Amino acid sequence: MRNDPAKGLGLIRIGVIGLGVMGGSLARALSGIPDREFTLLGYSPDPAERDQAATAGAVDRVAESAEALVGDADLLVYATPMDVTLDLIPAHGPLWKPHAVLTDVTSLQVPTARAAAEAGAGPRWVGSHPMAGSERAGFGASTRDLYRNARVWICPGSGDPGRGAAEQVRTLWKTVGAVPEAVAAEDHDRLMIRASHLPQVLSNALAAVLRGQGVTASDLGPGGRDMTRLAASSPDMWLPLLRQSGPELAGLLREVGLTLESIAGDLDDAGSSDSGRTALEGLAELMETTWTWRQFP
Amino acid sequence: MRNDPAKGLGLIRIGVIGLGVMGGSLARALSGIPDREFTLLGYSPDPAERDQAATAGAVDRVAESAEALVGDADLLVYATPMDVTLDLIPAHGPLWKPHAVLTDVTSLQVPTARAAAEAGAGPRWVGSHPMAGSERAGFGASTRDLYRNARVWICPGSGDPGRGAAEQVRTLWKTVGAVPEAVAAEDHDRLMIRASHLPQVLSNALAAVLRGQGVTASDLGPGGRDMTRLAASSPDMWLPLLRQSGPELAGLLREVGLTLESIAGDLDDAGSSDSGRTALEGLAELMETTWTWRQFP
Repeated sequence: MRNDPAKGLGLIRIGVIGLGVMGGSLARALSGIPDREFTLLGYSPDPAERDQAATAGAVDRVAESAEALVGDADLLVYATPMDVTLDLIPAHGPLWKPHAVLTDVTSLQVPTARAAAEAGAGPRWVGSHPMAGSERAGFGASTRDLYRNARVWICPGSGDPGRGAAEQVRTLWKTVGAVPEAVAAEDHDRLMIRASHLPQVLSNALAAVLRGQGVTASDLGPGGRDMTRLAASSPDMWLPLLRQSGPELAGLLREVGLTLESIAGDLDDAGSSDSGRTALEGLAELMETTWTWRQFP
Repeated sequence: MRNDPAKGLGLIRIGVIGLGVMGGSLARALSGIPDREFTLLGYSPDPAERDQAATAGAVDRVAESAEALVGDADLLVYATPMDVTLDLIPAHGPLWKPHAVLTDVTSLQVPTARAAAEAGAGPRWVGSHPMAGSERAGFGASTRDLYRNARVWICPGSGDPGRGAAEQVRTLWKTVGAVPEAVAAEDHDRLMIRASHLPQVLSNALAAVLRGQGVTASDLGPGGRDMTRLAASSPDMWLPLLRQSGPELAGLLREVGLTLESIAGDLDDAGSSDSGRTALEGLAELMETTWTWRQFP
């Protein structure tokens, strides 16, 4: 039993709201589990996405509305952009089944946990955030293997520890090959603003400068492509997150700016021929330091 | 004949100086060509790398010194960091065979072309720069497929157009599956400072800030990993290039800094609750613009 997470989910109805990259990939992975006992319900506000998911066999049943799905689900996954999730939670609160377990895939866990608490979710809300995704959007970009070996942060709600609910959410992610790891929502969000939102905005800023300089994406080599891949991410998904990250993210962007200014100063000095051989000491130290740091994984 | 680039190289001796990622990958690819007529000579200043290349069968003969190899080669490839290449060119000038064709793999083509001209290479020097590489260094990180489908910039030397030499260098790269494309050295370098050196330094700057914030590389998801991959690149290879890019690169770093400051201002405004829904207009426009730009390839 412990070695078969799919059995661990049991004879329940799993509802996935949002069938884009995140929800679509989850549905594809879950629907492919052999001998599963659970039933999969899915909903997308986009009729084309609903058709695609049904045609692909990613869900057992496509709901006609989010509300219809919510009343049926024993385990409900909000795989929607954060602003949509924050709108849906209070609207859905009265519709949740009394014992339904509720989760999400949001890159900031404090706002959704707060909304869930205000909507009366109590310990049934167990936030989750997979460290997986794509710069592409929509069901067409979803894949069955997106979550395989991906870390999924699990943020149990405040108040009652809700062990049963947390265990079910962990089992959900293990079922699709992911690696759940518990974290407090506040610690999670602090890390994500640094490890995820900051790189995202840097990629956009680099792309904007390259574009202004007349460089095209096809001019890039592998390094330049990696560094601008995130610039192709959906603004609709990111803007609500970045708005929430607000001043904390702003401070980090300014810290990068100071680092760049320091490097630029070094490079200016290198231009003066006499000191050219030694003037890059600051940059050399920075490159050695980050080289060591990045060897880790 | 035209469809078989390996035959096009003919019965010559190809010498590869430097057996790291770039030279090692070139040697591995060339040595694997079936029915080849050419002989492969290789040299690395690192005895371990010489042994590895010999054991892997990546070269037919390992030279005991760069000088010994230079006097034997009909087609000579400098696959060394730029500062080393700039030191070797004048030292090797007197040793080059009279009709040897000379090339390199350097990310800035003006300095090496100038050094070659000063060393009397004339039209025999045809610079080349493959848009391929790795954040890892050394023969151990070389692969047989590194250049497959990679664009290789070809910068014919000044003066005599040297068509025969340029054709041989083009054939060399086609033989390993790459796609040669001619460009003037000045245009090449302007593009590389933007499309390659700027992303490199941004990756280092991001890694430095994350490190300072207590984030570890294992905390990163796919996006953060992509954005810091280049930070693991060899400082020994990069510092000479960045020194040369100097003030031009400094100006670009400051432009990124201004873009970041502009985004930070937007994010600060978003923190004031009244304007939160509309204040990110600048960032929204930037994300839409770069999203479009990055769809291209």
